[in-house]
Amino acid sequence: MNEGYAGVCSRIVESVGEGVEDMKIGDHVIPFFQGECGTCICCRSQKTNLCQKFGVNPLKSVMVNDGKTRFSTMDGNPIFHFLNTSTFSQYTVLDSACVVKIDTKAPLEKMSLLSCGVSTGVGAAWNVANLQPGSSVAIFGLGAVGLAVAEGARVRGASKIIGVDINPSKFFKGKAVGITEFINPKDLDVPVHEKIGAITVGGVDYSFECVGNLEVLREAFLSTHTGWGLTVLLGIHPSPMLLPLHPMELFNGRQIVGSIFGGFKGKTQLPKLAEQCMCGTLNLDEFITHELPFHNINEAFQLLIEGKSLRCLLHL
Amino acid sequence: MNEGYAGVCSRIVESVGEGVEDMKIGDHVIPFFQGECGTCICCRSQKTNLCQKFGVNPLKSVMVNDGKTRFSTMDGNPIFHFLNTSTFSQYTVLDSACVVKIDTKAPLEKMSLLSCGVSTGVGAAWNVANLQPGSSVAIFGLGAVGLAVAEGARVRGASKIIGVDINPSKFFKGKAVGITEFINPKDLDVPVHEKIGAITVGGVDYSFECVGNLEVLREAFLSTHTGWGLTVLLGIHPSPMLLPLHPMELFNGRQIVGSIFGGFKGKTQLPKLAEQCMCGTLNLDEFITHELPFHNINEAFQLLIEGKSLRCLLHL
Repeated sequence: MNEGYAGVCSRIVESVGEGVEDMKIGDHVIPFFQGECGTCICCRSQKTNLCQKFGVNPLKSVMVNDGKTRFSTMDGNPIFHFLNTSTFSQYTVLDSACVVKIDTKAPLEKMSLLSCGVSTGVGAAWNVANLQPGSSVAIFGLGAVGLAVAEGARVRGASKIIGVDINPSKFFKGKAVGITEFINPKDLDVPVHEKIGAITVGGVDYSFECVGNLEVLREAFLSTHTGWGLTVLLGIHPSPMLLPLHPMELFNGRQIVGSIFGGFKGKTQLPKLAEQCMCGTLNLDEFITHELPFHNINEAFQLLIEGKSLRCLLHL
Repeated sequence: MNEGYAGVCSRIVESVGEGVEDMKIGDHVIPFFQGECGTCICCRSQKTNLCQKFGVNPLKSVMVNDGKTRFSTMDGNPIFHFLNTSTFSQYTVLDSACVVKIDTKAPLEKMSLLSCGVSTGVGAAWNVANLQPGSSVAIFGLGAVGLAVAEGARVRGASKIIGVDINPSKFFKGKAVGITEFINPKDLDVPVHEKIGAITVGGVDYSFECVGNLEVLREAFLSTHTGWGLTVLLGIHPSPMLLPLHPMELFNGRQIVGSIFGGFKGKTQLPKLAEQCMCGTLNLDEFITHELPFHNINEAFQLLIEGKSLRCLLHL
């Protein structure tokens, strides 16, 4: 059993509940936080991966079907769930809409990356941007998600992949996933979008905001080419401030879209993604930078906060 | 010679300058404010109609090629140009990138509608939203542009076209262009988006903001279905306020895009649009509500301001 850093991971099925037909004991599975019920209007649409029944909701703390928890303290108080998965434990119980069977030959440790970060980045390039060969790309924030965007862009044949980060140590890792040029905003005396406009003759085709910062979001937006530039939003924005864009700026033909879980429908698409990792189309080798025993979880978080790790496997 | 209300209109060519090969004296033409040079990176792209050389720019007051004007007062002072057309006059001079030849059998008076308002609305539905048969639509603001969106949606086979306006007199005209349901926000005790969500089971596929008001824009955005709803922005927003959307709201899968001149490339696409009017696919009959002599131009503006006219033909 391996824990991905975000608390979601690859698993082996220990038992299945009544009515579950697509999994059996011993199956290898990937849990995912953005469920797929398969029957709601969103699951039946090809345009979205936002399941109406099992969509991600940070306030949802119980199982969908009976409104109860599956964990409790020794004295009987409920331990609440989080993001449909609750996998910081040796055993867990998941709705079948939030778990998918994969090939038993797939390496479970690496598969944990598909539960969140890598899928989120790769899918933003593939499903949300639908990035075409020869396109130019700028990625703002080179954590695991941003680097996964780069890996997705590399696989799709992007001609130019610009990485933007204020942490220069990210640049070494970036080269391994296909980033062709780096920009450290601290080294510039002009705004990042001006620099990108100059080295691309007018801006990139696609930019990806993987930070969750409003100033970065604006730079990402302005870094794209007028007429068709698309900014994909992946960063979480806790600020109460609104989008730093004026309505009239949309008339320049730039667009901005949000992306949850890279637009992947988990049950439908993750098995294929796992295959693409197994055959080497998608390279996951760079993303697990550390492994620690579970009781060092706080150290693992600290590495992440300090920008020293991408993903840390926690062994139970 | 007929003047469209916005100062652009259909014309007959009186003379052509050196190097102009696609028009000759006597041709019937439509001038348009969003030019198409045909050679810049944007004109060569299928993704945008924003010409880099002759794009709309309210601050541009001279001819592009020589930086001079073609009008002057009797004592020799320049009279500046506006929006590439400057057609509030019996004769005018246009860059060939801003004028296109149409069938001489097309009725010139109605063709003036294709220079701006009707093209802007119809194109927003056809080119920008790429509206599919069976889709549901909400249109905020039922002036000429909003009603043209409805006409475009009707032609494309929308199943439900909801018109939203605080002026009930617009509702009669709306029925003629295919609007199936009306909402007057003043009649509601809930926000418009809640009403639209209720009568469409979750929201429309497409909404169109044709007002230029931030509160309306937010209602239009929230009126679309999560997962795939698209809001097309057509209204001009003079307010310095930013988009009334939080970045995290984009994670609900709704999108917002701007639309200039309905996404039409004037030289490439207007002749076909004129044909579609001639054969009755697109019905322009409802849009010219008044005709006045040119010296009554102020009266014509007043009718528009009071919401009593859609387009008024001014006869020179």
